[in-house]
Amino acid sequence: MFEAHFQTFEEPESGVALTARLSAFREEMARRKLTGFVIPRADQQQNEYVARCEERLAWLSGFTGSAGLAVVLTQEAVVFVDGRYTLQAAKQVDRKAWQIEPLADPPPEGWLEKHLVAGDRLGFDPWLHTSAAAERLQAACAKAGAELVAVDSNPVDSIWTERPPPPLGPVTIHGLQFSGEAEAEKLGRIRLEIDKLGVDALVLSDSHAVAWSFNIRGADVSHTPLPLSYALVPKDGRPTVFIDARKLSNATRDHLEQSADVEEPGALAPKLTELARRGASIALDHATAADALGRLIGEAGGKAVRGNDPVSLLKAVKNTTEIEGTRTAHRRDAVALTRFLAWIDREAPSGRLTEIDTVEALETFRRQTGALKDVSFPTIAGTGPNGAIVHYRVTRRSNRRIAPGDLLLVDSGAQYQDGTTDVTRTIAIGEPSDEMRDRFTRVLRGHIAIARAIFPDGTTGAQLDTLARQFLWQAGIDFEHGTGHGVGSYLSVHEGPARISRLGTTPLKRGMILSNEPGYYKTDAYGIRIENLELVVGTEIAGAEKPLNAFETLTLAPIDRRLIDVTMLSSAELKWLNDYHARVNLEVRPQLDEEATKLWLDQATAALR
Amino acid sequence: MFEAHFQTFEEPESGVALTARLSAFREEMARRKLTGFVIPRADQQQNEYVARCEERLAWLSGFTGSAGLAVVLTQEAVVFVDGRYTLQAAKQVDRKAWQIEPLADPPPEGWLEKHLVAGDRLGFDPWLHTSAAAERLQAACAKAGAELVAVDSNPVDSIWTERPPPPLGPVTIHGLQFSGEAEAEKLGRIRLEIDKLGVDALVLSDSHAVAWSFNIRGADVSHTPLPLSYALVPKDGRPTVFIDARKLSNATRDHLEQSADVEEPGALAPKLTELARRGASIALDHATAADALGRLIGEAGGKAVRGNDPVSLLKAVKNTTEIEGTRTAHRRDAVALTRFLAWIDREAPSGRLTEIDTVEALETFRRQTGALKDVSFPTIAGTGPNGAIVHYRVTRRSNRRIAPGDLLLVDSGAQYQDGTTDVTRTIAIGEPSDEMRDRFTRVLRGHIAIARAIFPDGTTGAQLDTLARQFLWQAGIDFEHGTGHGVGSYLSVHEGPARISRLGTTPLKRGMILSNEPGYYKTDAYGIRIENLELVVGTEIAGAEKPLNAFETLTLAPIDRRLIDVTMLSSAELKWLNDYHARVNLEVRPQLDEEATKLWLDQATAALR
Repeated sequence: MFEAHFQTFEEPESGVALTARLSAFREEMARRKLTGFVIPRADQQQNEYVARCEERLAWLSGFTGSAGLAVVLTQEAVVFVDGRYTLQAAKQVDRKAWQIEPLADPPPEGWLEKHLVAGDRLGFDPWLHTSAAAERLQAACAKAGAELVAVDSNPVDSIWTERPPPPLGPVTIHGLQFSGEAEAEKLGRIRLEIDKLGVDALVLSDSHAVAWSFNIRGADVSHTPLPLSYALVPKDGRPTVFIDARKLSNATRDHLEQSADVEEPGALAPKLTELARRGASIALDHATAADALGRLIGEAGGKAVRGNDPVSLLKAVKNTTEIEGTRTAHRRDAVALTRFLAWIDREAPSGRLTEIDTVEALETFRRQTGALKDVSFPTIAGTGPNGAIVHYRVTRRSNRRIAPGDLLLVDSGAQYQDGTTDVTRTIAIGEPSDEMRDRFTRVLRGHIAIARAIFPDGTTGAQLDTLARQFLWQAGIDFEHGTGHGVGSYLSVHEGPARISRLGTTPLKRGMILSNEPGYYKTDAYGIRIENLELVVGTEIAGAEKPLNAFETLTLAPIDRRLIDVTMLSSAELKWLNDYHARVNLEVRPQLDEEATKLWLDQATAALR
Repeated sequence: MFEAHFQTFEEPESGVALTARLSAFREEMARRKLTGFVIPRADQQQNEYVARCEERLAWLSGFTGSAGLAVVLTQEAVVFVDGRYTLQAAKQVDRKAWQIEPLADPPPEGWLEKHLVAGDRLGFDPWLHTSAAAERLQAACAKAGAELVAVDSNPVDSIWTERPPPPLGPVTIHGLQFSGEAEAEKLGRIRLEIDKLGVDALVLSDSHAVAWSFNIRGADVSHTPLPLSYALVPKDGRPTVFIDARKLSNATRDHLEQSADVEEPGALAPKLTELARRGASIALDHATAADALGRLIGEAGGKAVRGNDPVSLLKAVKNTTEIEGTRTAHRRDAVALTRFLAWIDREAPSGRLTEIDTVEALETFRRQTGALKDVSFPTIAGTGPNGAIVHYRVTRRSNRRIAPGDLLLVDSGAQYQDGTTDVTRTIAIGEPSDEMRDRFTRVLRGHIAIARAIFPDGTTGAQLDTLARQFLWQAGIDFEHGTGHGVGSYLSVHEGPARISRLGTTPLKRGMILSNEPGYYKTDAYGIRIENLELVVGTEIAGAEKPLNAFETLTLAPIDRRLIDVTMLSSAELKWLNDYHARVNLEVRPQLDEEATKLWLDQATAALR
């Protein structure tokens, strides 16, 4: 009935056939007089989604997770993965050739210190590591008496036959009707930040920052409209955008050239070298700039100043056009979500639906809006025990039938030109157990505590995080991820610098959009998560002594009433829930044609008491 | 009727007569070829309470606050103070000779960068600054092209006629019945930490750490039974305690010599030099070790390893003897507190009581326990607008009559040999306003949220802090201090490393004692604070998936029921309050003789509904 285009369900290729690649790689290492090499799952800009030509870790080891690192020595080969990928890695890599080790506690550097010996030469590609990461490798090598060698070209690429070409997704203009601020104004604000930093130029090494600054979007990676590119913004004079010209139409080239010179990506290094030779100090983003950039600036006599990319904070604070856009996007998304939730309730009792069916249905309902550009990430649809796997992604092999007694967790999002969405709902299939209702209600109370929070200007996400956990802690349970992340405006669904997490040290500012997604996961049984996006807004209260902020909930979709134990809610929490559902009904119902869905919505949003 | 011994109410000497000292100091600077000098409010160990001979800042400038820094240049002189001391400093220093500047935002280093000129020689005493502080001074000097000069002797001391001698408070043994762990066991645990650090020796530069490690107490500073001293613990072999022999009786010397060599304080520097000459790496506490220690280790060829003093964490986790002791101390203190609160209710309506009367009465009730060693800090007794001054300390001049309609805030504590207490109660004098009741109840709800919190092992104080503020934020108000600090066991009432504050990154461990003291301060009107001490304890809950901790409230004293708006409390909060009051009644009533106080207690702890 339904078909998904943006998401596929294939198993990644299995590891066994890859063993020959490891042998070839070791030969290549030997040719280069290296006794080891580090292969991160990373591109030159530390992107979350990377182009296929950058999937060196997967090509060599078979491991396709979104985070990881391999180290190949002459006798040993290891893939380091985090807890969520331990099982997947064990299936994907050839265990006769590869060991699997944890990515943290201890970090890979600890392994290196133990396994490198004096005189070893460990190679790394300085384009694929940040300087901080390179320094950690350097320290590990120093402790072992080994040498860390920055290579000029990546040895994986030397042996990777049929390596895909770099993507050439066409660039589009992100017009004023969506961006709300012309490039000239944005560049003016960026220059103020450059002044504050006291540097001669700023490198935008994050394509998201380039996209935001020059009001363009692209199609180079999955799920994020990213135009892979760099930019260099000097203190005075015209900036330069470094981007493959084949991605530009005449119109997009004209647009860019109104505010910048346009050059090929290969021109970045010589341009930086030229600036550095004149003694320039150049700001680099510590989170995305490749170590290679800092090296070439330093070697040419310039000064690399590492810090937070100031564009990251500018971009995170949405203007009124972007805010109106995201509200519209969420109202549109709400129709697809409502149809989807009604469809689940109608179809799931048959016992024939699978997880893949739900992913395809949801994408189809979103396509029917006529505005869907992509899903903002592969939908997580986990029923029963699969719901307890936090980063679960269904494949044809893992695909599970949705059975009575299951909780179905669906975490999904859409890319619309006016806004990016991200929403999780947990749906009772048949009759939930008392324990499920208890856990769901505790998660909901945490969600409401964030949604209702009022906090002084300057409050960080770290200060709010516990509000989401307090009711779970009271039952001796918790969730092992942050409460929320920043969300872009037709850009990445995971956007810094603010987040709601014990690590979230950035003050929340009006105009930021963050997810609010507490959960609970019972291993081998079920998963629960309730996620809305929240906009930080100012609020006023009589007698207040300082400027206050609050959240405006953007996401509009019923929260499953069958999973709520009303007796556990305070009157303020119950009021929030009923008000929210009344608002969902008010916003969504007029957009619906079909009577059945209207009836379903009325019942799904009826007041609880 | 009452008289206080541990607390005085005199005004510090006024600034006008001190101008001659500044002239003499500038002449001394000139003799030493310095164009400036930095005078911190600090002793060699960064103690909170310092001996009179260390009060250089007060002697020179007149400013007697507990935090501050002066810079004297040839033409300018500045005292840097934080917000709580701005008014006090303005009264105390001679404004014709001294400027007053903020201690933070910007820091004094910013002022130095602007006012130093190339070629200036800024002196500082490396015994009175940590290395981190010295490095900040160094950076400021470097930016201005000036030179930072570490002096061998302090120029204030050169001109300070009638400087008091160093204190010689007799040392006492803190026996096993109070400490619960012999020195030998403690040293064994310290050596494990030295092993973890991988160093050759550890310097205990914090007298609290020396006191804890060797089970001694002293009488060198006010309000904390501190034996000013150092210790050096080598990886192997006997430690050395550096302490003025005149403070030791034969018994205390014998006690110390069972586990350590005893030398004069002046022997520390040569001993470190000797170790350093043999290339030793020596751990120093970054928070209390003087920069001079790091310098002399480095100059002698050793390696100074700066970090957190491991004894700080060992000391913060109380053993069962210390825990039983603190429970006993709090039960004892509760009798004094109950008598005090009953006395206030009886006497305040007359309108004749003053703040000093309350301080004296409270100390007297505590003396009547027969166990009081000292107050643990000068009592803060602020009525009406004085209650809004967070660090208020009453003097004869500021002393205010307690009038109907006031809120009276009393923050006090006792040093008993079995435990240290710290408690704040806010008392309604006459009929409180609706606003006062609203504010008090919000503070109480925050207090209860901390007291009732259940949290996983590993949770930090930063993660709990917001629980105390959430109800204030909802009204647009807040308090500008942390929610809680660690408390020692017959040691400092302010003890690290854990605290409940957005800066509290130390995980809370079972056995730690922390204050829980949210508040609200309405400038020029009234102040509210509710403070109990809390012990971190393990707790179990059916179905819990991880080890859990909770707080056991140690402090036992009625919370003023007349200030509580019961309609604002949740049923769980009301239950906590009634349970707490029932427990206070149960623990305190059997200790009371006088019928009137029993009756008062019954009424003050009666259940609310």
